Parts: sequence; structure tokens; C-alpha cells
Amino acid sequence: MNMQKIVALAGGVGGAKLAEGLYRTLPPDSLTVIVNTGDDFDHLGLRICPDLDTVCYTLAGLANPETGWGRADETWNCIASISVLGGSSWFRLGDRDLATHLERTQRLRSGQPLSQVTHDFCQAWGITCNILPMTDQIVATCVQTAEEGELEFQDYFVRRQCQPRIEGFRFTGIESARPAPGVEQALREADCVVICPSNPWVSVSPILSIPGIGELMKQQTVVAVSPLIGGQALKGPAAKMYRELGFEPSALTVARHYGSLLTGMVIDERDRELGSSISESGIIPLVTQTVMLNEADRVNLGRTVYQFCERLLRREH
Amino acid sequence: MNMQKIVALAGGVGGAKLAEGLYRTLPPDSLTVIVNTGDDFDHLGLRICPDLDTVCYTLAGLANPETGWGRADETWNCIASISVLGGSSWFRLGDRDLATHLERTQRLRSGQPLSQVTHDFCQAWGITCNILPMTDQIVATCVQTAEEGELEFQDYFVRRQCQPRIEGFRFTGIESARPAPGVEQALREADCVVICPSNPWVSVSPILSIPGIGELMKQQTVVAVSPLIGGQALKGPAAKMYRELGFEPSALTVARHYGSLLTGMVIDERDRELGSSISESGIIPLVTQTVMLNEADRVNLGRTVYQFCERLLRREH
Repeated sequence: MNMQKIVALAGGVGGAKLAEGLYRTLPPDSLTVIVNTGDDFDHLGLRICPDLDTVCYTLAGLANPETGWGRADETWNCIASISVLGGSSWFRLGDRDLATHLERTQRLRSGQPLSQVTHDFCQAWGITCNILPMTDQIVATCVQTAEEGELEFQDYFVRRQCQPRIEGFRFTGIESARPAPGVEQALREADCVVICPSNPWVSVSPILSIPGIGELMKQQTVVAVSPLIGGQALKGPAAKMYRELGFEPSALTVARHYGSLLTGMVIDERDRELGSSISESGIIPLVTQTVMLNEADRVNLGRTVYQFCERLLRREH
Repeated sequence: MNMQKIVALAGGVGGAKLAEGLYRTLPPDSLTVIVNTGDDFDHLGLRICPDLDTVCYTLAGLANPETGWGRADETWNCIASISVLGGSSWFRLGDRDLATHLERTQRLRSGQPLSQVTHDFCQAWGITCNILPMTDQIVATCVQTAEEGELEFQDYFVRRQCQPRIEGFRFTGIESARPAPGVEQALREADCVVICPSNPWVSVSPILSIPGIGELMKQQTVVAVSPLIGGQALKGPAAKMYRELGFEPSALTVARHYGSLLTGMVIDERDRELGSSISESGIIPLVTQTVMLNEADRVNLGRTVYQFCERLLRREH
């Protein structure tokens, strides 16, 4: 059988890379990417949506290839001048990137929902798949820390560089958040849902916690790609978070974390020995090269994940 | 006698040039510049104060020497990216300039008055004289036009490039505006007030229309520098405005416009023949080179105006 529709759940840099691999593999309109907005925050009077922007910039070919976030060919004159004025400069906003936040903030203030703004921006950037924020309501990831109490996510992530020890998370506003327009339909109509190699605690968990999304996922063929390789995250604090919360960080731990939601789990060749334990948990493992250093790696992993989904679907039908 | 205190009233580019000439001539703390804020407006969710910024950038040595407005060594990546998103790009905001608007908007929203924000910015930029907005309240210059009705000033000035024929002006909010903190004291304590070569209709008139300022001016030695040379403005629509309102544009017309407010009037060598008519109006003329093409011209005119003020004061005492 040929799959028609894939939904990918993504956070920031790692998720965006696989989303791009799928985007370059699949025909137009076959892919919907549902993006975490729990990291979104207000800064310098602007609404900033880091994961959404990273996914959009990556798929549009506008992303900074060095950092994975922000824009290529960027300048930093505004933030440097803000710093001279004594303004806040810990969150690195490039001049081109700033345009996204300024224009988005304007449109949100005029009453447009985030999903509409995102749709219009994707059109302007020539993106031919569907990128949806998980919700149009405001959900804010709060990080509960031992030493410093509850921190806003970007405060923890950027300003405090993930130093404080974590005790838990809270997604404020999640109870009253609704899936953004298109999210539920995309999940219902999908042949397969791919959970990208994003941070399970702070990138994927907010999406799964939106009322209604978890239920729809349970009825789907779901494949996750492990964000941990050899017990470590390529980027970000996922492994540190597992450790601080009392779990041995590994692809197996991630598989058990998602648990019964998963049909299949893609793990790196370096974690080949975890395959049998994942199998024993009732999840079908696939071992492959998952490190995405360049676009060829992204496309390869996208194609491999796509084919894995097809294989799982054939098994089920 | 030696003058201790000079107050200059200024609008944008032309006013900023003479303000700089005075600034480079006078000892620190001797100069207070009161700046028009009637052109201020909200754009892209930011509070923009074009005249205030032009004066500050000019005195700080940050101004773009080509345009007279905006910042030197500027980049335009943000506005170009906003344009790609279909956002508003008719008002040219440079990346460095944007920092001023972002940080100011933040501070205003947090409750700081414009005069406080301006003071802090001047400190950050190393400006050693006193730059005051005319008021902390919002006053908006509206341009009444024959063809298009009432236009907001920047809409008329930048987007419509002063094309529409003018029938009058309205300064909304002026009745309830109060002089910004420091303005009245500076005017009371000044030895002499200089009206810079700014547009009398839309740069100087709003300042003079703030309740209380006109009264204080009447008790002062006031010198104006004509913004018209040979019946033309070096920059901006002053001459066009006089014509459309039924006046022959000339330095004499400007002198009569300010009328009994003036003790003296500085006119350009090219307008030498108007001197006697200005004299007959009871205003003491000074003929000099008033075109400021470079910093030396600004300093020369600043010094000449300063010495003219001294001469007028000696006469009065």
C-alpha cells in the first residue's frame, strides 16, 4: 500500500531536521507537522515561538545551518543596539528573525489565531506542507527546579542554560487548550504519526497533553525516533532531565516513556543492543543511522522512517 | 555678559543639525533641546518618535550622514524580511534603529514616561546635554488635505510623500498635554530660546501649542533660524505648505508667522534683501550662511546663533 498522509510531531532543532527529511521525501500536501508551542513566550513585547520558527525556517531552507535555530545569513545589529540601551539581550534575536516576531505579534494583536499566522507565513516562505501549532491557546511550559523554584522555560533553557536541577514540569493553560484547527483532522486522517527526535519532556509531552490529541494518537500507528543515542542527546537537556527525574537516559527509556502509544521505535545503530528490550515492551524496533549531520542524512532518515511506517501499516492491514 | 543656558526647539533633520551646532559650541549642561513629538506614531506595534530619535542620533554621532535621519552603518534585514511576510514596509526601519523603538516601547508599556526613557537613552548614548520631549502625553499631528481628508502625519509625510494638498493641521490631544518634566523650568531659566530651522507648521507649532509653553516663550529672548532659503526648504514640505495655505514662502513669511514671539531672526545670505522688511516687523535680523552641509557648517552656525543671542541680550540689559 502507498501511504497518503503522515503527521509528524516536532519540537525544535532535532524535530525540525527529521521533519525536513520527511518533507523532502513525501509528495506535497502529504505531510502535516504539528509543532510544540509550550516554549513560546513574550520577550521585548514580542510573541516568540521558537519551535514553530525553527521548523518553518528549516523547511523553507532559511535556517542557520550552524546552529539549527535562527536564520541563515543573519545579522545582530538590533540586539547589539538594545544591549547598548541596557535592554534585555540574553535571548539572541537576529535582525531577520526579528521580522517574524514583529509581524506575528502584530497579527496576533489584530486577532488572528496563531495557526492562521503560521499558515500565511508558510505560504510567504514557499513551504508546501502543512505546519500547525499544537494549539492557538497559550500554553506555557514551566520547569520546576530544586534550587530556583519554578522557571519559565526560556528562562531555564536559554538564560540559565539548563543548569538548575529539574524536579518536574507544568504546562500552564493546557487544560483549557484546544487542538489548533486542522490538528484533529490531520491526526484522524493520517496513515501514520511520527514522533520526531525531540525532547520527550518539554517538546513532545506538551503536544500529547493537549486534551483530545492523546486519544487520537492511541488510535493511530505511531512511530517515534529516539532523541537519545548512546544515552545522550545530540543537543539539549533530554538526557539530563531523565537523569534528574530518576531514569537512566536511553532509547529504551524513551520507548517506555511513550509506552503503549508506540507501534514502532527507531533507534540508532549505536543502541542496537536495546532492540530486544524494546521488542519485549511490545514495540517494534528499527535500527538505523539516526544522526543527521547534513541534508542527505535528513533525507535518508526521512525515507527510512517513511518505509518503516509503510512496513508497520502492511503488518496491521 | 556670558549666557549660561540656551533652550533650542527642534523638529527633525534641520533642527537636529543646528542643535548639534549648539551642542558642539556650548559647555555641557548649558543646552536643553525641546523636541517635537507630534510626529510620533505607532507602527508594527512599536512607538516611534522620529524627531526625538533624529535629534538624539545626531547629537550622539550615530546619525546616518547621508539621510540625516536613521542610523549610520545601518542594515535593513528586518524590514526586508517583514516585506517578504507581506507586512508593512513603507516606513523604513533599520535594524539598529529598531532597537530604539523596541526598547522604548517596552519601557513605555512598563509605565515609564517618554521623558524618562529619553533621558536614559541619552545617557546610554553619551549625550551630555538635556534632550526633552515637548510632552509625555500623546499628541498627534493630523494633516487636513483637500483630496484625502485628514491623514496621520507619517502617512502624509512618508507613505504619501507630502503629495496631497494641505488645508490645515490639527494636533489631537494638545489641549490636555502638559509640558514634559523639565520643559517649563528650562524655558524659565533660559537666557535665550532658539527656534531651530524646523518646519514651523508641523515641527515647531506643536511645541508652541502645548498649554503653558507659548506663555513662557513670550517672556523670553527668542531667536528663530529660518528653515526657508530663497523661498525654499532644503528638505521637507515647509515651502509647499506655506504655498498651499496661501502664503508666499520666504524667510519673511516665517518671521511674520512667529511674529511677536521673536526678538531676532537668522536668515541666509541669499535672503539678505528681506532683512529690512523683517526689521520693519520689529524683529532684529541677522544675515549669515545658514546651509549646513557638514559638521563645520553646523558648528559655525551654532556659534553665530549663540553670539547673536548674546548680542540681543546685551541690548536688552
